[in-house]
Amino acid sequence: MLGARGGWRALRRCASLPRAVRLRVREALGARQPAEAVTVQGWVRSVRSQKEVLFLHINDGSSLESLQVVADPSLEKRDLTFGSAVEVQGKLVKSPHRMQNMELQAETIRVVGPCDIWSFPLKMKERHPLEYVRQFPHLRCRSNTLGALLRIRSQATAAIHSFFQDNGYVHIHTPIITSNDCEGAGELFQIEASREAKDSAEKTHFFNVPAFLTVSGQLHLEVMAGAFTHMFTFGPTFRAENSQSRRHLAEFYMVEAELSFTESLQDIMQVMEDLFKTVTSTVLSKCPRDVELFHKYIAPAQKGRLEQILKHKFMIISYSEAVEILKQAPQTFTFKPEWGCDLQTEHEKYLVKHCGEVPVFVINYPYDLKPFYMRDNEDGPQHTVAAVDLLVPGVGELCGGSLREERLPFLESRLQRLGLTDAYQWYLELRKYGSAPHGGFGMGFERYLQYILGVDNIKDVIPFPRFSHSCLL
Amino acid sequence: MLGARGGWRALRRCASLPRAVRLRVREALGARQPAEAVTVQGWVRSVRSQKEVLFLHINDGSSLESLQVVADPSLEKRDLTFGSAVEVQGKLVKSPHRMQNMELQAETIRVVGPCDIWSFPLKMKERHPLEYVRQFPHLRCRSNTLGALLRIRSQATAAIHSFFQDNGYVHIHTPIITSNDCEGAGELFQIEASREAKDSAEKTHFFNVPAFLTVSGQLHLEVMAGAFTHMFTFGPTFRAENSQSRRHLAEFYMVEAELSFTESLQDIMQVMEDLFKTVTSTVLSKCPRDVELFHKYIAPAQKGRLEQILKHKFMIISYSEAVEILKQAPQTFTFKPEWGCDLQTEHEKYLVKHCGEVPVFVINYPYDLKPFYMRDNEDGPQHTVAAVDLLVPGVGELCGGSLREERLPFLESRLQRLGLTDAYQWYLELRKYGSAPHGGFGMGFERYLQYILGVDNIKDVIPFPRFSHSCLL
Repeated sequence: MLGARGGWRALRRCASLPRAVRLRVREALGARQPAEAVTVQGWVRSVRSQKEVLFLHINDGSSLESLQVVADPSLEKRDLTFGSAVEVQGKLVKSPHRMQNMELQAETIRVVGPCDIWSFPLKMKERHPLEYVRQFPHLRCRSNTLGALLRIRSQATAAIHSFFQDNGYVHIHTPIITSNDCEGAGELFQIEASREAKDSAEKTHFFNVPAFLTVSGQLHLEVMAGAFTHMFTFGPTFRAENSQSRRHLAEFYMVEAELSFTESLQDIMQVMEDLFKTVTSTVLSKCPRDVELFHKYIAPAQKGRLEQILKHKFMIISYSEAVEILKQAPQTFTFKPEWGCDLQTEHEKYLVKHCGEVPVFVINYPYDLKPFYMRDNEDGPQHTVAAVDLLVPGVGELCGGSLREERLPFLESRLQRLGLTDAYQWYLELRKYGSAPHGGFGMGFERYLQYILGVDNIKDVIPFPRFSHSCLL
Repeated sequence: MLGARGGWRALRRCASLPRAVRLRVREALGARQPAEAVTVQGWVRSVRSQKEVLFLHINDGSSLESLQVVADPSLEKRDLTFGSAVEVQGKLVKSPHRMQNMELQAETIRVVGPCDIWSFPLKMKERHPLEYVRQFPHLRCRSNTLGALLRIRSQATAAIHSFFQDNGYVHIHTPIITSNDCEGAGELFQIEASREAKDSAEKTHFFNVPAFLTVSGQLHLEVMAGAFTHMFTFGPTFRAENSQSRRHLAEFYMVEAELSFTESLQDIMQVMEDLFKTVTSTVLSKCPRDVELFHKYIAPAQKGRLEQILKHKFMIISYSEAVEILKQAPQTFTFKPEWGCDLQTEHEKYLVKHCGEVPVFVINYPYDLKPFYMRDNEDGPQHTVAAVDLLVPGVGELCGGSLREERLPFLESRLQRLGLTDAYQWYLELRKYGSAPHGGFGMGFERYLQYILGVDNIKDVIPFPRFSHSCLL
């Protein structure tokens, strides 16, 4: 048996150069004072060889900025190229350059992973367009833009978890595989055991019934709304929409929250707004350089707009007011605005513009437009439900929510009219056993990222643009 | 347009009783001083009506403990029963009882959701066995045990995110739908658009190629190991194992981490051990009463064992040492221990017992037993790879990890022998472009919960025991 091992900090010491302290690029750049015997590992982002000195830039993904390495030209070797993985040991010293705090004076440079630069699709000092790198799902994380995106996505994810955690929400992993088709929507993925696995089983369906990939965790969160006052889920959801749109994905992440003992749509909107503002502020303060990259090269006007939005309350208009605004609009729409009809993308765009290119809550939609679980406002003759959509410039619908119909007789008669009583027997049962008034909402995580960063194509805010390349991931 | 709305704190004020401060049960129980005009909402866990006084216990899922409500018998009404959802307004005062800090003197009690107690499957003051409540996936969250489990699961999830975040890991959402079958394993779920969605498309496969549910995010994390030094994922994974076992689920959560610039299995084991200990310590300190419930009623010996484990270093033995220990064992195994054969559950159990019922790392497994991506130790004649499994008492394999083969020639010849060169062309390409030595591991989240809580059946540590009841969720 081998003996005991050192603490966590041992990890930060370099195995091959035992006395050197291993620093990440971010740590080296932010160091307060010079240090001897430092090891930095990363990928070479540039090589500049002069007569007297060799300059490298090393990036390890811990920040957008790379660390400048200054070395004697004798340390240059054939495989020390752009893209190679290196381990540099040396002294961390104050940089004479105004733009950089520290630099590394190399004593040794070890190439631990050479790069075949002739076939490598990324090139030194080139700003590759997003469409170009999208072709290389296994390599594009090595570009500045995708590196920045992935750090932002990671920070936003953490900020979402913290927001709910800090406010006493219970995190629930709602099921991915479900027999529930949520409202009978058609665009579902069905799952079966693959042929190999099926041969050994002897039945039609693996789970004895048809099983699908979830389109929303809402109904499962509603189950939990019978035992907790605040709960959330944040996971993948799926739509088999056969679309090559820049706004849709077959697999996307959704944040969903549910609040019980809530009788007002205002409560739901308040959480939506707080979530948006808290997460956005955190991302802006924790990844300033990464966000700047997007606001400089991808969507130049977005920075100022976002700062304004964080300062002001989101607007609220009712669906009926929205229709009036649309009817009075000087422009002609492809779909004529009419009370009782869905708001189309052109309508949403106009409303957001009319309100000053800021996020707008639209509330109280027609009863007949919305699914069975939304709470009847009982406000005829223009009969509405307590539903809310949050529209944002450029993206359209970012969030959707509602109060849920907690009154058993209302729900029973509605499900009966829709012929869904049998399918939702369990949902009806929830109302029989201490059903508190409740409501909730969902926010599309990729649309959120698209909006704050000003990214046009939704495929550019996910880690893997699937099925777009012969080397399938 | 409606006007602006109040801040986040407004949520904590009760809509229907505007001047009362809304407190959660946890907050009320922990209050430092008495307070007038307090509103508490929750579900009735007990009703005791005496001549002079009415006692209620209210629980809202914020803690295992319920809040005692003391009321005048005139406030009693027919629908104020066990299981009903109520809103109580009154004074929060010091409790005369030694066991409880505060209690609520009710001024009004509003039943917002009555409960049909005659058909409600949970009964007042009964401790329902886990097998019993498993039959009611939509109602079991209302039992004490499942409430405690869900709070623990939520805290453990948050602690896992914090652990990686605090140590500079980038969170990557690895894909759920993938065309990659990870090592050609047979137990995959295949996905297709459902019939409705398929009719509108006119092709064999939705994605033009067969698509599966992920069995591991490892290979996708390895892509990111070309741009970052530390990354992790924590999401659902799937196996179409046709098993009704107490240890397997078709859908389960896995924590996976990958470290680049790592040349030693020790580094990987250190992170595994730190993750386990940090998350467990957090759960024990943040949910003491919830954990106590399990350690009292479900697994009485587990508490002391866990405390011991947190104090000591995990043990490490090599696979070869493990086989020697098994060969010298006084007991007879169904599968004879032999170098080159897989360790069976009976072997794992013996090893853990032999080491004193503590977690044990087993390292350096036979080359031929392990998948192509594990790093060759080049240590013939008993030829091994740098793989590690973490075995724990009662559960067996909790984590598995390895160094990955970063050397292109080794990988090429191995894939060729296995006939997998075409399928893993993209994986080979990663090694051509600055491939740093790297490694990583995965930990089954449900097995982790099973282990720390001492829960026998894995179905009791997930929010929804799917497909086990006629009201399918």
